[in-house]
Order: sequence, then C-alpha cells, then structure tokens
Amino acid sequence: MKKVTILGSTGSIGLSALDIIEKNPDRFRIVSLVAGENIKKLKEQIEKFRPKVVAVKTKQAAITLRELITAKTRIKIIYDDEGVQEAASYPSADIVISAIAGSAGLLPTLAAIDAGKDVALANKETMVMAGEIVTGRAKKNKTKIIPVDSEHSAIFQCLEGNDKENLKRIILTASGGPFFHLTGKQLKRVNVRQALHHPRWKMGRKITIDSATMMNKGLEVIEAKWLFNVDIADIDVMIHPQSIVHSMAEFIDGAFIAQMGVPDMRIPIAYALTYPERIMNDLNRLDLVRAGHLDFYQPDMKKFPCLKLARDAGMAGGTAPAVLNAADEVAVSAFLQEKIAFTDLPDIVNRVLDNHAIKADPSINDILQADVMARQETEKIIERMSR
Amino acid sequence: MKKVTILGSTGSIGLSALDIIEKNPDRFRIVSLVAGENIKKLKEQIEKFRPKVVAVKTKQAAITLRELITAKTRIKIIYDDEGVQEAASYPSADIVISAIAGSAGLLPTLAAIDAGKDVALANKETMVMAGEIVTGRAKKNKTKIIPVDSEHSAIFQCLEGNDKENLKRIILTASGGPFFHLTGKQLKRVNVRQALHHPRWKMGRKITIDSATMMNKGLEVIEAKWLFNVDIADIDVMIHPQSIVHSMAEFIDGAFIAQMGVPDMRIPIAYALTYPERIMNDLNRLDLVRAGHLDFYQPDMKKFPCLKLARDAGMAGGTAPAVLNAADEVAVSAFLQEKIAFTDLPDIVNRVLDNHAIKADPSINDILQADVMARQETEKIIERMSR
Repeated sequence: MKKVTILGSTGSIGLSALDIIEKNPDRFRIVSLVAGENIKKLKEQIEKFRPKVVAVKTKQAAITLRELITAKTRIKIIYDDEGVQEAASYPSADIVISAIAGSAGLLPTLAAIDAGKDVALANKETMVMAGEIVTGRAKKNKTKIIPVDSEHSAIFQCLEGNDKENLKRIILTASGGPFFHLTGKQLKRVNVRQALHHPRWKMGRKITIDSATMMNKGLEVIEAKWLFNVDIADIDVMIHPQSIVHSMAEFIDGAFIAQMGVPDMRIPIAYALTYPERIMNDLNRLDLVRAGHLDFYQPDMKKFPCLKLARDAGMAGGTAPAVLNAADEVAVSAFLQEKIAFTDLPDIVNRVLDNHAIKADPSINDILQADVMARQETEKIIERMSR
Repeated sequence: MKKVTILGSTGSIGLSALDIIEKNPDRFRIVSLVAGENIKKLKEQIEKFRPKVVAVKTKQAAITLRELITAKTRIKIIYDDEGVQEAASYPSADIVISAIAGSAGLLPTLAAIDAGKDVALANKETMVMAGEIVTGRAKKNKTKIIPVDSEHSAIFQCLEGNDKENLKRIILTASGGPFFHLTGKQLKRVNVRQALHHPRWKMGRKITIDSATMMNKGLEVIEAKWLFNVDIADIDVMIHPQSIVHSMAEFIDGAFIAQMGVPDMRIPIAYALTYPERIMNDLNRLDLVRAGHLDFYQPDMKKFPCLKLARDAGMAGGTAPAVLNAADEVAVSAFLQEKIAFTDLPDIVNRVLDNHAIKADPSINDILQADVMARQETEKIIERMSR
C-alpha cells in the first residue's frame, strides 16, 4: 500500500490522480491533500479519501472548510505557505504528487524532497525555476523524481534500461497547439476562446495558453534538461499534431525509442505512482490503424518565438528561466483577461528578460526574488501597453 | 575485444556484420567464418579479417579455397556439416552471428549454443523449426540469444528495462511488401522480378519473396513467440509501409514503446554485437520530418494467406512450424525458377501442412525428419502441378 500526498488535488492533474487512486484502493491510500481555493471540491475529496491532513491557501479557506465538513471527520486542517509545506512533508507519505499550478509549486515540492519523499512531478515550474537546486536536494536526500508530464514520462520510459552514455538526443513532441497552421498575420488576431481550444489535450487554462504559444514546450525543454541531465543543445522539439508519440529518445547508433499512447494524463500519472511497475486501466487503447497516420514537422520558431525564448533562457541558466516563467505567468494571465494580444506575449516576456541581470548559481531566495521582480516588471510593461 | 564467429559470412547479413567489424577494429576480432559456396568472397574475407578457422560446405570448396589463398596464410580450413559445426563452436569465440540462410542454420546454431556461445540470431528458421529446444538449450548453457532481425531487435529494445509481467502484446510491423496494394486478381499475375523488388529492404532472395507473400512476417511471429516467451495470440502484425517503426510493445497500462530507425540491418546487427552498449556509426540518421508520415494498416490475411498459415502452424506447435518452413523454402525456390505462380505458394504450403501428422514435443531428429519429408512432399506437389 503506497501512501500518497497530492499537492494541487482539485486541479486537472490532481483529479486524474484521484481517479486512479479511487480505482486502485488496494494499492494507494491518500494521507495528505493540498488545494487552492476550490473548497467545495476539497470537501468531497476529504469525504471520499479520508486524508489525515489537508492544507489550504488561506486561514479563511481553512475556516470555511472546517464548517463544511461534518464535525466527526477526524482531520487536521492547516493553511498558508507554512501549512502547505507541512502537508507536503507529511511524515507517513511514500510519494508526493506535485501538481500545484505555476511557481507556487516550487517550495512545497522542495519541502517534500527535503522530507525524503519520492516526487511524481507534474509542476514543471519546480524544475524550470530551480532545477539545479531541486535535483541536488533530491540526490542528497536519495529521493526519486519521476516525471508526470506526458512528454517527460515518455522520455523516462524510453531511457529505461538504456545507459545514459548511449543517448544522443531527446526529442520532445508538441501537438503544435491550436494555431499550428495559422500565418503570423492570423496569429495577431486570435482570441482567448480560440487559444483555450487545444486540439488534443484537456488541461488547465495556463498550460493551454502556453501550448498555443509553444512556451509550454520551451518550459518542457528546460525541465527535460534537469530531469535527464542533458544539455539543451541535445533536446529537440518536433511538431506531431496527432499527439500519439508522446516523445522520443535517439541513441548514438541511430535507434529511436518512442513512447506512444492515447492522450490521457492518467497513463503517465499512474506510471509515476507505480514505477517500475505498470497497472491496468479501463482507458481507451491506442489504435494506430484508426489513428490513420503520424506526422512530424519542424517547429517554426519565428511564428512561435516563445520556444526560442525558453531555450535561450535555459541555456543562459541562473535566474533567467525563473524570470522567463514569471513573465509568462503574468502575461498569460493578462491575455486571459484580454488585456494584451496573443502576439504581445512573447514580446513582453522578451522585454522582461532583456531588462533582467541574470544571477548565476542562485539560491532559492535569489530565485524567488527574481520571480517577484519579474512579475512587477511584467505588470508594468503590460500597464504601459494598455494605456 | 569481442571475438566473433560468423555463420554465413558471404550472405547479406554476414557482409553487413563484417562491415561493422571492419569499422570497429578496436572492439571486434573475427575468429571463425562459415560460408556456403561463394569461395571468392570468402577468400577476400580471410585476407582482410584473418580468422583462425573457416568452414565451407563441401570438400571440393575447401580444396578450391586452399588453392586460392596464399600458402603462408595460417588458417584451418574445414568442411561439410561436421566442419561447419566445429567452426560454429570454435572455442575462443565470445559471440556467434547465426546468419546462414534457411533451415541449414539450425544445427550450426545449436552447436554454438551447446558450446556456450552467445548468439546474435539472424537465422529465424532456428527458432521457427526448433524454438523450444533452442531456448531450452540456451537456458541450460546460460547463453544469451540476441535477435538480429530488425523487428525482433526492436522488440528486444522495447522490452529492455520493462518487466515481462507488464507486457500486453507485441506488435510486429511489416512493410507489406511490393504487393501490398494489389488486388487478389492482380496477385495471380505477378512475376519473379516484381516479387524481388522489395520497397524498403535490400535482402537475400528467399526472404524477399517471403516478404512479398508475408510468410516472412508469419515466420517472425513464430520466432517472436520463442525469443520473448509470448503466446502467438499476443503477437500482432501491423502493416507499416514506411518501415520506420521496426516494431512495438504494448504494455498493460496502454503505453506503447516503439523502436524506429532507417531500414539498415547494420543497426540491429551492431546492437546484437554490443548489447547492452550501443556504438556510433556513419549511417544515415532517421529524419522523421523528411519521412513525412507514418501509416499503419491491418494485414489482409485473405490476400496474404501465408501469414495465417504461419500463425496457425505456430499455434499447433510440434513439427508443424518446421513443415511450414520446409514447404515454403521449396515453394519459394520453385517460384524463383518460375515453376509455380505467386498465388500457388500458400496453396502448396497449406497442402503440405494438411498432409502432415504433427508430432508434439519433437526431438531435433523428429524435426529434421519432418523437414526432409515436407520437402519431398512439396516437390511432389509442385511436380504434379507443372505437368
């Protein structure tokens, strides 16, 4: 019986994880949940999964939650950053699913690693912002970090049983998003509704916009660098509109190993929870004959400059990826609020990066400070633009 | 330094293997070669690779060879079945590449296994005819059998690092051969030249015809059963005209792992020689973007009945696969001599199988006897047809 903590239990990944856990009651038991502000959903989860502890963002949310659940439910309810980190490092957990959206996932994930927990990592910002520190701490604490992102889970599976020495490069596939076929001119006029309509994957709003700009793939390149200890120069991106090949590894002898499947996050989530085992599920199976054909294209970095911005930030290192990520979070939020156009997004991120003096070998505090400064800078730029 | 024996050094696989060995003189050294009747080519190989021993088919060939090579070349030349088996079990070899074409490969391969050599297996007839005995002897002698066929090498690579318990099925890909798009009616009129024109792979004549009838894929299904200890019911075939995905494994969680590459036998041959390592080469690299798209189709067992005949013989077991294989060898030879039509081939094999009383748990002698009887039976049927 594996004891599981979920950071971000009411989000898209959290719900999928709980679906797997509910269907495998003999394998998993929830001990700790962390959620944001969806208290109603968290209440249902508490009643169904009976965690020992839950953490929410604010004291007010904790009070509301306490009122919602029946008095006889024995549960510890904690809150704010400290509470979230306490829940993330809850002693009896064997594995922590890190699925809080955005940069807020960094400190709780680090807390889990410092507490010696294995981590099923869905929060890519953890690696983007602080990959060197995170992988260093995981090594020190002898904890495993198993990727949950479908692309990174694919690479992880492709590398199993293969010596790292034999790897030539990693190829992350990208659906290309909803705007793959648009011209640069058409891109200028896309609206929020169109950008939120991802052709293959149902995901949260932030990551769906990041998929449309291809910033998501850029963040994944940086994440892959740290997860697999590979230079960014050896990580390529290939557009694959069918999202069936989830990613590939190319070896020095010319052999490619690819992982494929239907686009359902429950497969990589379950794999991260049961690795090196696999478990059966009742999901649709991939039917390659019905799928018709698999296509591959080079990404167009001119039309989707976010991919290049992310690669460059990843190569620059230090605080650059954290700044990239912070600027993107703020810019995506502004786009969702219709304050900026779709094509403003890379320009804004680029300007924030240009104005930032990269600090090498940053501490967590340096990174968090860069994050805050970048957010302020981005807000300012957006404000000036909307005048 | 790995010491290598090649059974079938002047054939297509043998030449590719020697190409790899020539390019990696620091890794490999040839100690023993076995060839058929291409004495001129064998002479060149002796001069270049300086084996300690060579074996040829006949005494006459041995005499001719001795006359061809310079007197000062220190080499033991042996001949006939006994000589071939002696060369196959040459003491100092670490690995034996089994690449004699057809059923003639069985006894030399068994001799290598009995001598405790690891085997890089390109001769699928070894497994088709006597899979149970061969795998049993390999287990007893603690020797590894590493597949060389691109499909089986792909599966071998896809299963690396994965527990057999997690495997759901094996999917062997097939190019579909030169006649994939023909109608049943058109198939009746194809000639030898057309059948020898394989769209993707350059191979020997026998295997090229077997690819056109899809008997080759059927034999591969039986080979996969023994190599990977999987029921034939869990081995599927999928047509993939581009021959880029060399085969796939599907796991119980819905994940597929596929191995891909350019269609060049030197990749799987080198892998079998260096496993679990890989070595660099100067071959063309797979370019998925240039490849355009990858298609997958169900095989048409009505148009290509050889696939079903082979699956059925594999399921029946005992001497049935050996009979299938013998009948096919004779029928292919008759087709190449333009004695029979392309579509006669499955009918003939089917009739030979129908007339055969399968012996369960056969000894090697039973298998060899079934092979001889099936050949005679096939000759008779062909003779009657051509009257």
